[in-house]
Amino acid sequence: MNDTRDPGASPPELENPETTENLGGISPAFIAQFVGAVGDGDKPALWRTVKELHPADTADLLEHLPPEAFRKAIHLLGKHLPAEAVAELSDSARLDALHELTDAAVTAMIGHLDSDDASFLLNDMEEDRRARILNKVSASDRAAIESALAFDEETAGRLMQRAFVAAPVFWSVGQAIDHMRTVPEDDLPEVFFEIYLVDPAFRLQGTVPVSGLVRHPRDTPLQAIMKEAPVQVHPEMDQEEVAYLFRQYNLASAPVVDEAGRLTGMITIDDVVDVIKEEAEEDILALSGVSEAGVNQSVFSAVRARSPWLLLNLVTAFLASIVVSLFAVVIDKVVALAFLMPVVVALGGSAGSQSLAVAVRAIAERELEGQLARRAIRREALTAMINGALIACLAALIVLLWFQDVKLSLVMLVAMGATFMWAGLIGILAPLTIVRLGQDPAVASSVFVLTSIDMMGFFVFLGMASLTLV
Amino acid sequence: MNDTRDPGASPPELENPETTENLGGISPAFIAQFVGAVGDGDKPALWRTVKELHPADTADLLEHLPPEAFRKAIHLLGKHLPAEAVAELSDSARLDALHELTDAAVTAMIGHLDSDDASFLLNDMEEDRRARILNKVSASDRAAIESALAFDEETAGRLMQRAFVAAPVFWSVGQAIDHMRTVPEDDLPEVFFEIYLVDPAFRLQGTVPVSGLVRHPRDTPLQAIMKEAPVQVHPEMDQEEVAYLFRQYNLASAPVVDEAGRLTGMITIDDVVDVIKEEAEEDILALSGVSEAGVNQSVFSAVRARSPWLLLNLVTAFLASIVVSLFAVVIDKVVALAFLMPVVVALGGSAGSQSLAVAVRAIAERELEGQLARRAIRREALTAMINGALIACLAALIVLLWFQDVKLSLVMLVAMGATFMWAGLIGILAPLTIVRLGQDPAVASSVFVLTSIDMMGFFVFLGMASLTLV
Repeated sequence: MNDTRDPGASPPELENPETTENLGGISPAFIAQFVGAVGDGDKPALWRTVKELHPADTADLLEHLPPEAFRKAIHLLGKHLPAEAVAELSDSARLDALHELTDAAVTAMIGHLDSDDASFLLNDMEEDRRARILNKVSASDRAAIESALAFDEETAGRLMQRAFVAAPVFWSVGQAIDHMRTVPEDDLPEVFFEIYLVDPAFRLQGTVPVSGLVRHPRDTPLQAIMKEAPVQVHPEMDQEEVAYLFRQYNLASAPVVDEAGRLTGMITIDDVVDVIKEEAEEDILALSGVSEAGVNQSVFSAVRARSPWLLLNLVTAFLASIVVSLFAVVIDKVVALAFLMPVVVALGGSAGSQSLAVAVRAIAERELEGQLARRAIRREALTAMINGALIACLAALIVLLWFQDVKLSLVMLVAMGATFMWAGLIGILAPLTIVRLGQDPAVASSVFVLTSIDMMGFFVFLGMASLTLV
Repeated sequence: MNDTRDPGASPPELENPETTENLGGISPAFIAQFVGAVGDGDKPALWRTVKELHPADTADLLEHLPPEAFRKAIHLLGKHLPAEAVAELSDSARLDALHELTDAAVTAMIGHLDSDDASFLLNDMEEDRRARILNKVSASDRAAIESALAFDEETAGRLMQRAFVAAPVFWSVGQAIDHMRTVPEDDLPEVFFEIYLVDPAFRLQGTVPVSGLVRHPRDTPLQAIMKEAPVQVHPEMDQEEVAYLFRQYNLASAPVVDEAGRLTGMITIDDVVDVIKEEAEEDILALSGVSEAGVNQSVFSAVRARSPWLLLNLVTAFLASIVVSLFAVVIDKVVALAFLMPVVVALGGSAGSQSLAVAVRAIAERELEGQLARRAIRREALTAMINGALIACLAALIVLLWFQDVKLSLVMLVAMGATFMWAGLIGILAPLTIVRLGQDPAVASSVFVLTSIDMMGFFVFLGMASLTLV
C-alpha cells in the first residue's frame, strides 16, 4: 500500500495498481495513514493520494473515515477532490461532502461531469444554493442539468446524459469519424459505445456500434451497417424498466427519444448497473421490513427505516395472540399445546417466507405473467403439500414420542399440514395480488403473509385441540 | 402484436418494434398463436417469427410454452433457432432444448457464438455428446471452448471470451483501425468497447476505448491515449469479485491476464450484469432458506431446494418448544403467558431479520470491513435499543390494558427489551462471524439468528414470569 507521505513516492499516475489489485481497495493501515495526514493538515499528501487513486477508491477511502476526519478531509481537499469521486459517494456521504465544499469547488465539479452525474450532485441541494451554482456554469451545461432535474426521480430522464454522438443517416463511416475528430473534445461524451443515426428532424433511425466504425472501410454508408435500436427508451420510463431492457437485450447503451421520436439523450450501462444492484437490494431489505440501509447510516435514520414495520408487526402479533386467547380453556387443560403451538407457526412461517421470496424474485424477473403465473401457483401448492406432508409427519412423530398421546399427535399432523398449504398459497397469491394492485410486492407482502400464517396456524391447531382433546 | 401466419406480414427484420416496445415482450394472444402454429407443424410461420424477434424475446416466448409445445417447437425450429436465443434460455429450459436439438444443429450454433457463450451451452452436456460436437467445430473454436471449460464454474475464466482486439503498443490510431478493417470478420468479437495494447510478449500494457480511436487523428500514437487498465482480472477470480470490480470502476469490459501478465481474454459487461443479478437473487432466496428457484422449476426440484431448511427448522423449533416446556408450571398457572409469548418472539424475530438483511446487504457491498464493521455493530446495538424500548413500552401498555396486571406488564417490558437487544446484536454478529469463517452469510445465518432469538425470547419471558408471578 502506498505511503502517502513518502517524499520519494513515485510520480502521480491515474491508476495505482497496488491499490486496485487489493480487492475492496483500502487497507486499515492506508486509512490510518490518510487519517494521520488529515490530522496534520498535510494538503499535498492528500492531494497526491486522491490523484493516484481511482475516483471510486477515493470515495471508498473517504467513507471509511470517522465523521470528523471525513469533513476535515473534504475541506482540505477542496477543488482537488475529483468530481467523479464525489459522484461515487453514498447518498448521505455525498450530501455531507457537498455541504463542506465551497460553491466554487462544486461549480468546477459540475463542469467536469456528464449531465446525468451533474444533476445527480445537484439533486438534493437546497434550492437557492443550486440556483447560485447553476448561474455560474456554462449555459449549455445549465440547460442540460435543468432539463434533467425536470424529470421525476428514478426515471430514464434522470439516468440519461445529454452528450451523445449523432450523425445524419446518409453519412459514410469516414464522414462520421472525421466529424468526431474535429468537434471540440468537450462536446463528445467521455466514453460511448454507439453512435445514433438521425433524419433531418433528429428522429432516431438506427444505431451503429463504435466497433462497427473501425471494422468497416471509410466509404461504407452508415445506413449499410446500422441496426434498428432494439429498444427506444422514453425519458419518463421508470428506471426499473430501463434496467430490465438493458438486461433483456444485453445493451451497453441505449438512445432516449421523446414522444415525437426525436433523440434526446443516451443511457449507459454503468448507470444501469447501479440501478440493477439497488433494486435487488431494495427487495432484500423490503422483504425483511427495512426501508433503507447504507454504509454509515445514522442510528436515527436506521430507527426510522425499521420502526414502522415493527409497529405494524406489534399490532398483528397481538391479533395472533387474541386468536390464542380464544382457546384459553384448552391450553389450561393441556399445557403441552403451549409448547407445540410455536412449532406450528414457526414452520408455517418458514414455508411462507420461502414461497414469498421465490415469488418476489420471479416478479422482479417478470416470470409470473399470464400462463406462467398459473403454473407457478400450481407448483407452489404442490410443493407446500409435499413439504407439508413431510414435515407434518415428522412433527407428529416427535409429538407422539414426547407426549405418548396419539390424539395430540394427530392434531399436530393435521394442523401442520393445513398451515403449510395455507403458507404455500398465501406466499404466492399475496405478492401476485399486491403487484396487480400496483404496489411493490417486496414491501407489502411480508407482514400480511406472516400474520395470516400465524393466525391460521394458531386457529387450526388450538381449534382442533379443543374439539378432540377436551 | 404480429400475426405470425398473416401471409401479408411485413418482410422479416431483425427487430420488431411492436414486440419490443411491449415490455415483457410477449402477449398471451401472441403465445396462443405461436402454440397454434406449433400444433399445426407450420414450420415457415415459426421460422419467420423467430427471425423477426430479438433472441432474448424468442427465449422468453419459448419459456412461456407448455412443456409439450416447447419440445415440439424446438424440434420444428431446428437449425432456424438462433444460437443466441438458446443461450438466453433459463438453465432447465436450455438443457431441455439442447436435448431436443440434433448434434448438427448444436454444432452450427457453437460456431456462431463467442467462446464464453459456446462453452456455456456445452457445460452441462453429457461427456460423449460434447466430445462428438467439439470434434465437428473448427480447431480454434474447439481450443477456445476446451480451455474455457477447464476453468472452475463461476470464475472469470468461464465469463471471458477468447476473441478480443489487441495491438502492439507502438502502433498509431490509423494502424489499429486499418488492422481491424483487414482481419477476417470472424476474428473480431461481435461487439467490443476497448482494444488492448500489448508488448511483444503479449503482456498487457494498457487499454484504449474504441471511442478513443475515432476521436483522435490517425497519426496519434496509441501510447499517447492509452490508459492503464483499472483492474486486471485473472481467470481464476471468482465471478462475484469480477462483478464487484465492474461495479466499482464502472467498466464496460475488462482484460483477463494470466499469472505472467499475458492477455488471455476479455470479459464484457453483459455477462457481468447477469452475474450481478444472480448473486443478488441468491441472497434474497438464501435469506428465506431457498437454495434455488426459477421459471418453470419442477415441483420435485422446488421441494429439494426448500426441504433441508425446513427440516433444520423443525429441529430448532422443537428446541425452542423444549425451552417453553421448562416453564409448564407457570403457564399452567398464568395462561395469559401462552397468549403473550408468541408476541415476544414474533417481534424479536422481526428485529433480528431486519438486522440480518442489513448486514447481508452490507457484506455483499463490502461495507463491513475494518473500522466500518465496528461502527455498524454499534449502530445496530443502538438501533435495537431504541426500537426495543419503543416497542417494549407499547407492548407493556397493551398488556396492562388487556390484563390489568402491572407485574405481567413489567415482565413483558423487560423481556421484550432484552429480546430486542439480543436480536439486534446476533443479527449482525452472526453474519460477520460466518463470513470470517469463509461461509456465505445469507445461507447460514437465518436459522441461527431466528432460533437463538426464539429460545432467548421464551427463556427470558417465561423465566421472569416464573420468578415474579407465581
